[in-house]
Amino acid sequence: MKDFSIYENMLDDKQYHELRSDLLEKNTADIAQLLEHIPVDKAVLIFRMLPKNMAAEVFADLFSDVKQSLIERLSDTEIHFIIEELFLDDAADFIEEMPATIAKKVLANAKPETREEINRLLKYPENSAGSIMTVEYVDLKREMTVRDSFERIRKTGTDKETLYTCYVTDSERRLEGIVTAKTLMLSERDDVIGDIMDDDGIIVAETLEDQEEVAFKFNKYDLLSIPVVDSERRLVGIITVDDIADVVQEEATEDFEKMAAMLPSEKPYLKTGVFRLFKNRIGWLLFLMISGMGTGLILQSFEHALVAVPLLVTFIPMLTDTGGNAGSQSSTLIIRGMAVAEISLHDFLKVAWKEIRVSFLAGVVLSMVAFLRVFLMNMNDPEVYIKGAVISLTLIFTVFIAKLCGCMLPMLAKKVKIDPAVMAAPLITTIVDASSLLVFFSIAKLLLNI
Amino acid sequence: MKDFSIYENMLDDKQYHELRSDLLEKNTADIAQLLEHIPVDKAVLIFRMLPKNMAAEVFADLFSDVKQSLIERLSDTEIHFIIEELFLDDAADFIEEMPATIAKKVLANAKPETREEINRLLKYPENSAGSIMTVEYVDLKREMTVRDSFERIRKTGTDKETLYTCYVTDSERRLEGIVTAKTLMLSERDDVIGDIMDDDGIIVAETLEDQEEVAFKFNKYDLLSIPVVDSERRLVGIITVDDIADVVQEEATEDFEKMAAMLPSEKPYLKTGVFRLFKNRIGWLLFLMISGMGTGLILQSFEHALVAVPLLVTFIPMLTDTGGNAGSQSSTLIIRGMAVAEISLHDFLKVAWKEIRVSFLAGVVLSMVAFLRVFLMNMNDPEVYIKGAVISLTLIFTVFIAKLCGCMLPMLAKKVKIDPAVMAAPLITTIVDASSLLVFFSIAKLLLNI
Repeated sequence: MKDFSIYENMLDDKQYHELRSDLLEKNTADIAQLLEHIPVDKAVLIFRMLPKNMAAEVFADLFSDVKQSLIERLSDTEIHFIIEELFLDDAADFIEEMPATIAKKVLANAKPETREEINRLLKYPENSAGSIMTVEYVDLKREMTVRDSFERIRKTGTDKETLYTCYVTDSERRLEGIVTAKTLMLSERDDVIGDIMDDDGIIVAETLEDQEEVAFKFNKYDLLSIPVVDSERRLVGIITVDDIADVVQEEATEDFEKMAAMLPSEKPYLKTGVFRLFKNRIGWLLFLMISGMGTGLILQSFEHALVAVPLLVTFIPMLTDTGGNAGSQSSTLIIRGMAVAEISLHDFLKVAWKEIRVSFLAGVVLSMVAFLRVFLMNMNDPEVYIKGAVISLTLIFTVFIAKLCGCMLPMLAKKVKIDPAVMAAPLITTIVDASSLLVFFSIAKLLLNI
Repeated sequence: MKDFSIYENMLDDKQYHELRSDLLEKNTADIAQLLEHIPVDKAVLIFRMLPKNMAAEVFADLFSDVKQSLIERLSDTEIHFIIEELFLDDAADFIEEMPATIAKKVLANAKPETREEINRLLKYPENSAGSIMTVEYVDLKREMTVRDSFERIRKTGTDKETLYTCYVTDSERRLEGIVTAKTLMLSERDDVIGDIMDDDGIIVAETLEDQEEVAFKFNKYDLLSIPVVDSERRLVGIITVDDIADVVQEEATEDFEKMAAMLPSEKPYLKTGVFRLFKNRIGWLLFLMISGMGTGLILQSFEHALVAVPLLVTFIPMLTDTGGNAGSQSSTLIIRGMAVAEISLHDFLKVAWKEIRVSFLAGVVLSMVAFLRVFLMNMNDPEVYIKGAVISLTLIFTVFIAKLCGCMLPMLAKKVKIDPAVMAAPLITTIVDASSLLVFFSIAKLLLNI
């Protein structure tokens, strides 16, 4: 599948018939991949060969820049077919990604009802359950039979996993119960929905609920789909597991970015421009550089000690690196633990006590190795024991402070509703740098009588 | 749901009847959460109140330490019921997590066939498709009718999403096609499976395929389940989307841990002991500390310059921090991009060129700010312009090296089949530290004539 040139060649040789029957046997995700890797003029030709419903599926799978290039080249009629065939949630996502002129052109080619539905979806705040839900689902009524239900499924004609749970609503569209496809298949055709539906403890999402919360529910209850209700418990849509999988990936990627001191990016790396990458990174770089200069001031205040014992300088990178690493180990575990809801704010003391014990073990081992190293490198120095002791004590203290900051700052951030991912390696490193150098020189001055 | 004491109180007051009917209305995931938060003796009492099939579901949802406590308190008959009711993949996972004595006790209480199946599952290598598949699925034959199929689904009696795709196999269990529940529901009861099944381009996983690869397929093709076949294309099991969701979470967590210089942990943070946390962290801490001492040697070789111009020391934290941050921004994006298959090794030059341009923009901005800062803080120093130039030039170089290492090292690691996540912030920082200090003092010696 990786060699796309055979398809280009078939185009060049005008083997349209063979090409088309090849395409019909392919998976839509693979066709989308093909279209993304060939010149756009050829992509349009291939796209036009696809049957209508397949074309819409392929279209939904494309990156937004390829979508845009296609739309710019398609006729109004073709655009009309695509927008009507797309799932409404996919259509809304697509409209949201396009520049205003393209979005307008597409909406102008949609039916008024479709346009209205898309606009309604676009109004939900970003990252809310409403913004990722689809409005295509099978809704049944209590008094229907299984036979009626099959008829309704046939009419709804959806072909995602949307139909494996059907939703029973009353006359005001309030959710009354759910019926799984399994129940339908195992029931007699004359059974009545009201008798076979499940109406106990249905798990629902609210339109304004955060998508991360919804993802937790999917994970906890092993859901395939969840009904989305408004404030009056009226069913307004559903969210399916494939959309949640995307949410989980995106949220993890965002955390990776924030934890490496960047603003989260909207697009994949290769699709993000140089200037946007620069803008996402420079803010934190500047802030942390200026903070690092603050640490420099601490060093400056110990200039006298540095000139007296130049050897001290050589330990600076080792101390600051170790502090940064020890701190980022703790903060990473705590941030991730909170992100996947394994650690909550109630665990504050438990976490702190754990980290204190780990920091003690790690501090002792590191300081022993560092002492040995100082000793071996400076055996002729009459003050070697004292210098070793300065390093060892500083290390124990540094690791302690680092691990404590590393676990406490993310939890405090969460407490005051700041994203804990901000309290990751870069910021922890800067904070720990300053405190470890302060301790280092204070101990050195004391023990070495500088 | 968060207040578990009401259930404890009901137990203490012997309100068994009310408690049981309360439980029956609950979701199994919520009951599992309850059992994890009350004393184990009470948990056993509640667990015993549950109907058999519900008990197995609750059991599968428990953390392994709670599973073990329960098993230690249950009778052989009770253990027999649980192990027979569990899905085989859940049973195998559970046996794997238990200490040998418990595992033996449980297997001794299983039927011989169950024992054999579990042992077969346990033989697949960790993280392979075989190790996460389930062997409970609906298999149909070509010549069956839709009516026969419904009968078979009823007999298989599974209640996960396992039945929404049925698999058609020949007499040698080779996979011939798939039939979705949707197709079954929309067909006439007398239709024959061979006529309605889909046999074009079925996406399969092989038993030994890495679970991450399987997760990519789920994501790319929006699958609910995937058939797992052996080397002769015989169907041996299926993997369902809920298990894949767990894989995706675990793989992301592992990357977070590795990228913060830790060995990945098997268990959630709060369930991991202090000594195990210490062991996971100390190796990298030691290695990086010793590397940091190497950087110290570079400083030592410039002792002369440091004594001549003590001001230089005060820039060390700022330079090393900025280098580390700039590098970890790039490495994080590249490692994550490769983990979610957005960046491949073919993109090497594209990535490097992008990072070079970003590093130039960031380097120029940072160096201008740093120059200004040096100027403002040292206006009376006759050499202020030269010192500012030293800092600015070093910063440009440092950011360049950092971003280049940050993007290239993870890709090179992948090329030589090392996990790219190792080439993250901590290691990059150490490498960049050394090179930026070397450049800093070289430029300083040259421009300041030390």
